[in-house]
Amino acid sequence: MVITFLTDFGLQDDFVGTCHGVIKRIAPDAQIIDITHGIPLAAVLQGALVLANTVPYMPEGVHLAVVDPGVGGPRRALALRDATGRFYVGPDNGLLIPAADKHGGIAEAHELASPEYALPVVSRTFHGRDLFAPAAAHLASGVPLESLGPPIGPDALVRLDLPRPELNPHRIRATVLYVDTFGNVQLNLTREHLDKAGIVPGTKVELAIGTDRYYAIATRTFGDARPGDIVLYEDAYQNVAIAINRGSAGAMFAVTPGQELRIHLNPS
Amino acid sequence: MVITFLTDFGLQDDFVGTCHGVIKRIAPDAQIIDITHGIPLAAVLQGALVLANTVPYMPEGVHLAVVDPGVGGPRRALALRDATGRFYVGPDNGLLIPAADKHGGIAEAHELASPEYALPVVSRTFHGRDLFAPAAAHLASGVPLESLGPPIGPDALVRLDLPRPELNPHRIRATVLYVDTFGNVQLNLTREHLDKAGIVPGTKVELAIGTDRYYAIATRTFGDARPGDIVLYEDAYQNVAIAINRGSAGAMFAVTPGQELRIHLNPS
Amino acid sequence: MVITFLTDFGLQDDFVGTCHGVIKRIAPDAQIIDITHGIPLAAVLQGALVLANTVPYMPEGVHLAVVDPGVGGPRRALALRDATGRFYVGPDNGLLIPAADKHGGIAEAHELASPEYALPVVSRTFHGRDLFAPAAAHLASGVPLESLGPPIGPDALVRLDLPRPELNPHRIRATVLYVDTFGNVQLNLTREHLDKAGIVPGTKVELAIGTDRYYAIATRTFGDARPGDIVLYEDAYQNVAIAINRGSAGAMFAVTPGQELRIHLNPS
Repeated sequence: MVITFLTDFGLQDDFVGTCHGVIKRIAPDAQIIDITHGIPLAAVLQGALVLANTVPYMPEGVHLAVVDPGVGGPRRALALRDATGRFYVGPDNGLLIPAADKHGGIAEAHELASPEYALPVVSRTFHGRDLFAPAAAHLASGVPLESLGPPIGPDALVRLDLPRPELNPHRIRATVLYVDTFGNVQLNLTREHLDKAGIVPGTKVELAIGTDRYYAIATRTFGDARPGDIVLYEDAYQNVAIAINRGSAGAMFAVTPGQELRIHLNPS
Repeated sequence: MVITFLTDFGLQDDFVGTCHGVIKRIAPDAQIIDITHGIPLAAVLQGALVLANTVPYMPEGVHLAVVDPGVGGPRRALALRDATGRFYVGPDNGLLIPAADKHGGIAEAHELASPEYALPVVSRTFHGRDLFAPAAAHLASGVPLESLGPPIGPDALVRLDLPRPELNPHRIRATVLYVDTFGNVQLNLTREHLDKAGIVPGTKVELAIGTDRYYAIATRTFGDARPGDIVLYEDAYQNVAIAINRGSAGAMFAVTPGQELRIHLNPS
Repeated sequence: MVITFLTDFGLQDDFVGTCHGVIKRIAPDAQIIDITHGIPLAAVLQGALVLANTVPYMPEGVHLAVVDPGVGGPRRALALRDATGRFYVGPDNGLLIPAADKHGGIAEAHELASPEYALPVVSRTFHGRDLFAPAAAHLASGVPLESLGPPIGPDALVRLDLPRPELNPHRIRATVLYVDTFGNVQLNLTREHLDKAGIVPGTKVELAIGTDRYYAIATRTFGDARPGDIVLYEDAYQNVAIAINRGSAGAMFAVTPGQELRIHLNPS
């Protein structure tokens, strides 16, 4: 069975490799797909969004995700099953929910509480290695979900506040969700929001970020614009994003996830 | 079957991991070897050279490579077979050719045009996920090359201009091909060029980069020189390179790929 | 069989991917676990400590490790077996010994000297690819250890000087072993050293680094402290470490491995 793996561990240290070792000791036949380990440190919302964006492209299996600023504290450790049969393992901080919601919602949730499915010693700081990776590996080996610990009602799980955009006839108030390594700035908007606001390919808009103002043009892809143009387009994950053709919008705007960005229609 | 994978995606985001997921959904038994995802953004020539350097060390299989600044534009998508039976998948921008040329040249080329071997929706910005990874996975699963789309004559493929060195009795005019993470500077020269110029281990030369001049010594390996010495040696891929023993030539010379570098013989 | 792989190659270039290719050509069924390739360049001691920390979490198999500033020089190339049956492959510079010592010590050591278990051409600068990866792959395929080359007495192997702490009634003189990507500073101390010095959770101490002084508090985990507090705790590898809750101790102290750090008891 496949285990996918997403964290904020980075690849500088041995943290990811050590979890691979733990998984392979328990489940020698499991195949591990590293979705990414570049989630910004402790950025639970961004981890949740990347997981929700990518799970549809992954084989069915166990989706292990660890972005866990509350490690060592009272937050619970979880294993979930969604309505389509995919499993999720990670902390009870909202990280796993948006991906499960994209697959019919949570069918079953259990707390990781059975010591026989964790490492013999569970450290206070590295639950990825000692608790989550072993649970994912046991699930992948066929251990039933309910053996991992007591059930939890899906309503009792911690959920994230996903920022919602605000539309009025003159502007869209959006939030930056993610800035990728190419400087593309993903917003909490879909094409439906743009359609509702009457923004179609070719429409010119004004972007307001703090006190700065920029002109941008809606296009089907950033390749349709001239080098240096700021473009608003639907990205490969069906989110609206802002890019600069052959440049970095993230660097030019100096935006970070969570920041507000307004799109003004009919700029003068 | 093995699929090797080379891109300029970096490892910060999920792009590489998402392609792994796509491959594994189509070809669960394929094994993926990540050659590197650290090719500088949009650097097709460097991607092509690294692919050509490394394919000889890879198992036979499908060599998937995506360095694709023309994504979303009119450039074609390709699958090739070389004279030794290896397959290549990637954009028609020259990326795949030097590797195939090292293996007897291109025996067969097809355009990726059959929608049944791509994802159901092909985005305009992420052909790695939607077009190239699926094609590589189907090839690895036994789909015949000709099923992927119509044949293209090898002569109709886009080819890169590989920079050629210029030798005269007093100097070699070379081009920087690559600067690795250790600061070693790879040139478009082989030992045959040095032999022709009479440069043997122990020969002292002068390097000219822009208006700067440096003394360097030809050695068999940079370990033969004193710390701090600038050395000219044949690297592990049989290219001539410049290094500083326990230092970074790339940082000292501040060179980047494509830049000219002259080697003057018989320095005074 | 599993081959684990640890180096200072980084992931920017193709060095790691090329070694994977070499392994898979020789041992198609071997599974490779990348422990880390982020060991600082040429940092043999840190590579040795990370290997010793992580091998206990790895499946039994061949542990390939290459941190090798002496490549191309007279240092020997080794394959070892420890008392528990694990194999190690790497340079004779002390890198492999602490891991083997954690597993009952070295049972058998051989020099890599048989050309049939290396690549046909061994470069002077990339023994990872040409010598060590092939030897690990052949071991994983069942080639007996003694076929790789002549035996060496374990006493003849190069060993590292592991820095030892110095305790007196008023202070502990420790050495920084490692600074991870989160800025946690690992010391050459275990909980036994703290116990001996009377440092228990809640004890306040003074840290002296060069001419700087900081107050710190011993805790069971950095989550027990307030944001900004400097804490002394036992990390997930049973080493004593220093961290700043939601901050980076490594950045604040500007320490690097090998540096001395004193812990003063009973600060006024």
